[in-house]
Amino acid sequence: MFCLIRDGEAAHSLVHSDDLVLAFMDLYPVTLGHVLVVPREHVVGLGEIGDELGARMWSVARRVGQALRSNALDTADTGSGAGGRMRCEGVNLFLADGEAAGQEVFHAHLHVFPRYEGDAFSVHALWQGAERTELDGHAARLRALLP
Amino acid sequence: MFCLIRDGEAAHSLVHSDDLVLAFMDLYPVTLGHVLVVPREHVVGLGEIGDELGARMWSVARRVGQALRSNALDTADTGSGAGGRMRCEGVNLFLADGEAAGQEVFHAHLHVFPRYEGDAFSVHALWQGAERTELDGHAARLRALLP
Repeated sequence: MFCLIRDGEAAHSLVHSDDLVLAFMDLYPVTLGHVLVVPREHVVGLGEIGDELGARMWSVARRVGQALRSNALDTADTGSGAGGRMRCEGVNLFLADGEAAGQEVFHAHLHVFPRYEGDAFSVHALWQGAERTELDGHAARLRALLP
Repeated sequence: MFCLIRDGEAAHSLVHSDDLVLAFMDLYPVTLGHVLVVPREHVVGLGEIGDELGARMWSVARRVGQALRSNALDTADTGSGAGGRMRCEGVNLFLADGEAAGQEVFHAHLHVFPRYEGDAFSVHALWQGAERTELDGHAARLRALLP
């Protein structure tokens, strides 16, 4: 799907394009203004995103976040106002690598969600305190494995 | 809190340290192996993370993700096994910029969550289809505002 968009063969609403990445509006926005930052190259997961490409994805996502914030509607408004304005009181960046992480399109993409008080997005987790000895064991293991 | 960790004045389980960022185990892991990548400099939000710092944060997060995947327990195991092994069938990167986006510690940080089938983490959203004319309006607005 994202390759078709890159090749101009599928409809999309383009926000940014350069030699490494595209950014366009998500067709199923979590909140209005939800943007995807997508590598031009068909890479599937995080492990295939080298440092140059990753840096560009981050940079574009950050700039989209800044544009969303500068575009923000007053909090008293709801939804999408005149001239394509969107609510934005905060921003999430989110990437899912692998089906167990919620990845559904297997062409890597970084989500930029505009967020506002009372929006329909939420994260559910059990934030459980851990023992220092256990955390130290995990850290030692990861230090040894870091590529 | 993260400044105290950076200065060695608060307990932490270090995974990585360089001239720009630290990575350490989250004290309240969403899943075992949950790591935070944190700028040494006290910056609050996404807008303050310049391209060099952002590139480093991404690079370290990607490498932590690779270490988590290479360290993965068999899916038949649960929780934390011998030698600090953790389950990992997928990885999420997550950043919250602003209270409305769920930011609770106002020193910027990028989460790396190891994920597995049946873990306690989930994302709730209403993925609603949008009209192309509306998406085009949003895209035009963001293109004009992109810094």
